[in-house]
Amino acid sequence: MKIAIAGASGYTGIELLRILSSYEDIEINQISSRRYSGKRLKDVFPFFSGRFSDLVFQEDIDIQSSDFFFLCLPHEPSVELVKRVYESGKKVVDLSAAYRIKDTKAYTEFYGFEHKYPELLFKAVYGLPELFRDDIKNASVVANPGCYPTASILGLYPAVKEGVIKGEIVINALSGISGAGREPKQQFHYPEAFGDSYPYKPLMHRHIPEMENVLKNVSGSDIKVRFTPHIIPVSRGMIATITFRTDLSKDQIVELYRLEYRYEPFIRFLTEPPHTKYVSGSNFCDIFVDKDERTGLAVVITAIDNLGKGASSQAIQNFNIMTGREETYNLLTGIVYP
Amino acid sequence: MKIAIAGASGYTGIELLRILSSYEDIEINQISSRRYSGKRLKDVFPFFSGRFSDLVFQEDIDIQSSDFFFLCLPHEPSVELVKRVYESGKKVVDLSAAYRIKDTKAYTEFYGFEHKYPELLFKAVYGLPELFRDDIKNASVVANPGCYPTASILGLYPAVKEGVIKGEIVINALSGISGAGREPKQQFHYPEAFGDSYPYKPLMHRHIPEMENVLKNVSGSDIKVRFTPHIIPVSRGMIATITFRTDLSKDQIVELYRLEYRYEPFIRFLTEPPHTKYVSGSNFCDIFVDKDERTGLAVVITAIDNLGKGASSQAIQNFNIMTGREETYNLLTGIVYP
Amino acid sequence: MKIAIAGASGYTGIELLRILSSYEDIEINQISSRRYSGKRLKDVFPFFSGRFSDLVFQEDIDIQSSDFFFLCLPHEPSVELVKRVYESGKKVVDLSAAYRIKDTKAYTEFYGFEHKYPELLFKAVYGLPELFRDDIKNASVVANPGCYPTASILGLYPAVKEGVIKGEIVINALSGISGAGREPKQQFHYPEAFGDSYPYKPLMHRHIPEMENVLKNVSGSDIKVRFTPHIIPVSRGMIATITFRTDLSKDQIVELYRLEYRYEPFIRFLTEPPHTKYVSGSNFCDIFVDKDERTGLAVVITAIDNLGKGASSQAIQNFNIMTGREETYNLLTGIVYP
Amino acid sequence: MKIAIAGASGYTGIELLRILSSYEDIEINQISSRRYSGKRLKDVFPFFSGRFSDLVFQEDIDIQSSDFFFLCLPHEPSVELVKRVYESGKKVVDLSAAYRIKDTKAYTEFYGFEHKYPELLFKAVYGLPELFRDDIKNASVVANPGCYPTASILGLYPAVKEGVIKGEIVINALSGISGAGREPKQQFHYPEAFGDSYPYKPLMHRHIPEMENVLKNVSGSDIKVRFTPHIIPVSRGMIATITFRTDLSKDQIVELYRLEYRYEPFIRFLTEPPHTKYVSGSNFCDIFVDKDERTGLAVVITAIDNLGKGASSQAIQNFNIMTGREETYNLLTGIVYP
Repeated sequence: MKIAIAGASGYTGIELLRILSSYEDIEINQISSRRYSGKRLKDVFPFFSGRFSDLVFQEDIDIQSSDFFFLCLPHEPSVELVKRVYESGKKVVDLSAAYRIKDTKAYTEFYGFEHKYPELLFKAVYGLPELFRDDIKNASVVANPGCYPTASILGLYPAVKEGVIKGEIVINALSGISGAGREPKQQFHYPEAFGDSYPYKPLMHRHIPEMENVLKNVSGSDIKVRFTPHIIPVSRGMIATITFRTDLSKDQIVELYRLEYRYEPFIRFLTEPPHTKYVSGSNFCDIFVDKDERTGLAVVITAIDNLGKGASSQAIQNFNIMTGREETYNLLTGIVYP
Repeated sequence: MKIAIAGASGYTGIELLRILSSYEDIEINQISSRRYSGKRLKDVFPFFSGRFSDLVFQEDIDIQSSDFFFLCLPHEPSVELVKRVYESGKKVVDLSAAYRIKDTKAYTEFYGFEHKYPELLFKAVYGLPELFRDDIKNASVVANPGCYPTASILGLYPAVKEGVIKGEIVINALSGISGAGREPKQQFHYPEAFGDSYPYKPLMHRHIPEMENVLKNVSGSDIKVRFTPHIIPVSRGMIATITFRTDLSKDQIVELYRLEYRYEPFIRFLTEPPHTKYVSGSNFCDIFVDKDERTGLAVVITAIDNLGKGASSQAIQNFNIMTGREETYNLLTGIVYP
Repeated sequence: MKIAIAGASGYTGIELLRILSSYEDIEINQISSRRYSGKRLKDVFPFFSGRFSDLVFQEDIDIQSSDFFFLCLPHEPSVELVKRVYESGKKVVDLSAAYRIKDTKAYTEFYGFEHKYPELLFKAVYGLPELFRDDIKNASVVANPGCYPTASILGLYPAVKEGVIKGEIVINALSGISGAGREPKQQFHYPEAFGDSYPYKPLMHRHIPEMENVLKNVSGSDIKVRFTPHIIPVSRGMIATITFRTDLSKDQIVELYRLEYRYEPFIRFLTEPPHTKYVSGSNFCDIFVDKDERTGLAVVITAIDNLGKGASSQAIQNFNIMTGREETYNLLTGIVYP
Repeated sequence: MKIAIAGASGYTGIELLRILSSYEDIEINQISSRRYSGKRLKDVFPFFSGRFSDLVFQEDIDIQSSDFFFLCLPHEPSVELVKRVYESGKKVVDLSAAYRIKDTKAYTEFYGFEHKYPELLFKAVYGLPELFRDDIKNASVVANPGCYPTASILGLYPAVKEGVIKGEIVINALSGISGAGREPKQQFHYPEAFGDSYPYKPLMHRHIPEMENVLKNVSGSDIKVRFTPHIIPVSRGMIATITFRTDLSKDQIVELYRLEYRYEPFIRFLTEPPHTKYVSGSNFCDIFVDKDERTGLAVVITAIDNLGKGASSQAIQNFNIMTGREETYNLLTGIVYP
């Protein structure tokens, strides 16, 4: 099987390459990067020393030459390239937001472009295996979830599905800076981000429609979330601290979550709140569930690696499912600690 | 004026010494530390080079020898020492929680000891000048607020006072590790805390009764907060992201806050969410107020330095008020950036 | 093959467990830790989710029950336990300094204890495969090198072996804090180590006799190094910047190094100075060689992970050699970046 | 006195503004920044709340309107602007390298431009008060030293002046990333610099001619240094670890340094190696001197804040001297710790 990675020089592309380098039965035969076109992978990233380190970045991906595609592109180019892969009859996991939301208005409002292929939006499967595993198996186009939606939806799904939430949902999330991509920016220049932490876009974050859209699809009812993301000064790591009112007791809510996820290989229940570092470099989502009886509010806390379960290793999980592999194949290695 | 600092070798003690070293008209004549008794300040902390660097740590503080006392002790020893200072007729700012809560049961339940001087609890003034400035002026005993309560109460006070909050209050807070004190612990050993972030004690944090007690005192009604603190891997810095339902419009809620705090020298309103680094080493509390009309929830975000406005510089602010100085004296210096 | 790890709850023990969890044909049947005796691995380290996570820490290791031993103990207990494993006819990799130096006086002077088994010192092989691969193959006792000696000796070996160094050798090294172990200490308490960097023990560092002893053994002549270690505020990572006078030209010195290490699977030559992060979590040693013609001094810079090639993955490399496996088995996985 | 700061939006400019905001008897009446022209200081840097926060960035500085000038510009524009200030008869501290070296060839070779005003080079005084205090007093143009040269020259001056160094000088230096300026760059993008450390430009660093030129001027003989700078992942801080052969005993070399610097208000001798954090935000240079009798090499270690004594607070020290103030005026405040 020949694999292509478009936009391979960003953080999600590098992470895909790292994980795929342990697969014996595949060949990565194309990597693309506008910025590094013509350069070898190992000359751009000297730490690369696996099987693919002699690969040369191409300007673009040729659809004829590969069998499976990972797209790590900006949203708009992804709209087009996914369409072209789809028409070729091949399979693609798209790590952008281009096909995540079944509502074209969201693209106009939150992403600033008009989505040209609304019919393909409805053929694309949202690549969160814990919710849509069966659809992913047969999908040609998998829209890999965003990191904030992954952490938030996994923390809400059992409660939303069972309809046990009363009133509003408040999500406060923390994210490492790699989630903002590899492009240097003033606010992420090391001396400024060093030792700093702050909320950003507290009122209208792009990830809200993705979350609400998926939660509505699995519950059949409108769900509204109040979502405030915060930057924390680490490279990788994401926490979502979720609060909602419920009539379930503490034991009932804990049991609900454990039951729903009892066969999930990448969800771990902890008896203490989760740490970003415990999932760093992994595909795990650690979950803590509790209820504050004083206020009647349940507290669900999830932790993922924004580049792992929040992006690239989840893309590999989808790849494993789409290609008939064991879902956990190559994804259960331990984390580097400390 | 002769000043004593008990427990001067902890982080709040060092910060007091730093700020007080710029006062021309005082003498610090006693510093105590069990651990460093007999050693000079500058031998323990080689970076100290101000007027007080030749001071020698004593085992204990002698009440006769000084005129004003700052206590940076654990809660229980503080209960006793505050009492003794009070009986001598002198003034004290206590940075522990020993006299913060007007409810002895809270001490039994949350702090694990029985408070022996309930009558003195009611004479102690809660040292948040933005709420209790007039009481502080004439107080003998000022209970300096905790860092989480400072960030949370300043973010809630205008709304609570006006009674515009409907339903529960959700507070998610981030804190730098210096807030946990100077004692080495496994979870704060550098290799483990490096690059990590996590919530802790999400269900029952000691600071909740302090917050609820003060908010009840200023509003006359029971207030319940859902409070989840998170560790972030920095030395200093604290964010409180507060969410509550209100019928006020965005403009009304913003106006309410600006009006309430319009004369406050240490409260700055920002049009973007605040950064921990913008207040680091300062006595400022930066505030951002907004409303999410989609969900009907107001969002108030505050940022302080947990050792500054959350502890030592707020203690100095109280000291300035208690000794008839300009309240802002020596507290408006710029921050070291980046 | 049944494997025991003594002192498994320290950083080198955890790293061994992580790497060994990918071996299909071994069983770890004993892990010991005084501190956590009786507790399960995954209850102490919640991020552990591999095959060994249900293992229970024992107070001590039983020599009869296992076939191969990794010792991550303090120096003195290791002196004894290595002796006992040796007498049982089994094999051991000792990660302490207990058997690294062929000179009992060094133990008295630098480590503060008298070495009881000088004859066993001479049977132990210094576990730096790039220098002593053939001896390691047949060794029963392998003394795994320290992190500073690994980075320094690999950076000096080709030049020392060929005798091209004139005069003194100056080594300035940087180390992440995990190299100091898992025990919490004041200077490594997060708020204090955060944002700080400093040299330590500049005059007499324990690792000097280890370096000089090995370099003398391979060159036959006395070698003196001036070694200054520095703490940098990261968890993992080590740089050794080495300077010495030589008559070789730049091209000659580069060629000398490349030739010597041309078949080494874990040594990578870079054309730019190495980064600690490029080798983090790996067994690689990245090397940069150059000469400053203005001063006549060669500059050799090496980078390793102090817990990887500087400790645990090097121990696994030795294990692979001692047990007849491919030397690189399981040690060529890519690094997690960024 | 009216003061202008050209290039005030960089890190050295911000630091100058912070320190100068405590001066009662000056007015900053011009700040320039190409990037932020037309914007208010406090709108660009929301943490600014001192006297100057309403200042508006200008495109350029007008020489007629101010009495004293600080230039925080790139080297080439500084060449011109210094010249123009000089011709107006006013005083200037130039923080660029434009007038540091008395050798025009160095500019062609290391800085890539031809210096147009060689005669003015010889009128400019090198602004290291510990060496050139008397010249600075009467200078019109002071070339403020670079951070690496400050740390290195202060660590070498007593030994160089007395001629006690035999053979080559090896300097290994560590620098926080703020030393590279405020412009975002790929290698200083937070996720990449986070947790990383590495040497850079080990063979030919721009600061070498500056160091050698000054050392030659004070000693009369050619001095060659082998200088290797390293990036450490902090915002501020610089260490220079200096090694050289000498016949002086340990006591003699220590005494030589203490004697030379005995009246220096900003030089502190430590009995343990210095920490970057002990001088952060200050104008101090901490020094540690020792000798390794085994190798015959002296070890001198200095620590400064690269933006403090390595740039802006040293510029203020020069300003104090040039304007007849107490040299230490406003520069002895304590550091924010931890």
